Amino acid sequence: MSAPDETARDERHKARMQRKKAVVDAKIAEASAERGLLLVNSGNGKGKSSAAFGMLARTLGHGLKAGVVQFIKGAASTGEEAFFRRFPDEVRYFVMGEGFTWETQDRQRDIDKAEQAWAVARELLQDPEIALVVLDELNIALKYGYLQLDTVLADIAARPPLQHVVVTGRGALPGLIEAADTVSEIGLVKHAFQAGVKAQRGVEF
Amino acid sequence: MSAPDETARDERHKARMQRKKAVVDAKIAEASAERGLLLVNSGNGKGKSSAAFGMLARTLGHGLKAGVVQFIKGAASTGEEAFFRRFPDEVRYFVMGEGFTWETQDRQRDIDKAEQAWAVARELLQDPEIALVVLDELNIALKYGYLQLDTVLADIAARPPLQHVVVTGRGALPGLIEAADTVSEIGLVKHAFQAGVKAQRGVEF
Repeated sequence: MSAPDETARDERHKARMQRKKAVVDAKIAEASAERGLLLVNSGNGKGKSSAAFGMLARTLGHGLKAGVVQFIKGAASTGEEAFFRRFPDEVRYFVMGEGFTWETQDRQRDIDKAEQAWAVARELLQDPEIALVVLDELNIALKYGYLQLDTVLADIAARPPLQHVVVTGRGALPGLIEAADTVSEIGLVKHAFQAGVKAQRGVEF
Repeated sequence: MSAPDETARDERHKARMQRKKAVVDAKIAEASAERGLLLVNSGNGKGKSSAAFGMLARTLGHGLKAGVVQFIKGAASTGEEAFFRRFPDEVRYFVMGEGFTWETQDRQRDIDKAEQAWAVARELLQDPEIALVVLDELNIALKYGYLQLDTVLADIAARPPLQHVVVTGRGALPGLIEAADTVSEIGLVKHAFQAGVKAQRGVEF
């Protein structure tokens, strides 16, 4: 581009960005409520649990405490568990599941495990010292009917007013989505697994 | 349900889960390649950067090292930055952007900043000690043309064979998606911001 073209482009860019800034600033000014949020990360793509653990890191960065209950995964020790267990004063970390349900093939056993996990989750949801509760793979336990949605929603609704909760897992139930403040649907565009690449340390586990 | 119904339901569940386990086990057996992956987290929903930082935690949990370059965000200090800077021997953390582009409104300045950031990213992409490189909001810099996709893809392709790279940000370019191994599109189902809730500490920053 010639110099005048370049200048014109820069001017258009500046004008567009000024308009965008005005819109964003106005939205921020409007949004003023301060309260704990219920977030749901669902969908078939990769990143539902990872995003919850990123929020956990963010919470610790603010000097706040957090709790984690893993409902289904956890027979295998994972990288995030090894990492966040380094901070026992800041993170209460509970691995309650014993492998995916297709590993166990025993429905009553899965129900019992899910109920034990929910008892632990309820304790975290009653503790005002805990700024964030991660309920990892809870959606799976709800989808298979191992836990009742009504019970789960009632306990979440009764939590301390500034506590955030993030629920992960495929197949979030409509009632949970209805109750949530923020819902992300993580879609699979493509996955290395489809191309014959095995699960990689640091990426998948 | 009566007891016989319950038993029949448990049996059906077991049979279904046995079939599912067989399918999953076969897929795992097929997937055998061991190599560094290029992951892209795009879309309009919440969780793109959080998922990358969750992977970072996972990487550290395996005793590996990582590097982060934040391309656009970062004028404000965020929770994840405060947290991961606690581990200077394990994480090389660079905040190169100075606010979103609609804050600066100066195209040439943004290009210069993006090029400086890429020089840092290239160093990480040449370091075999680094198991994971997070290129946070790189998609924004590419979308606005602050960096050239060809240059970026060439540097990523030339990295050590076992190094993983995760790129975040809305509007991933088709050429990047084409080059990637795993791509997640994070869709916005709903967001608390739309309901007048302001950005919350530990959730949004």
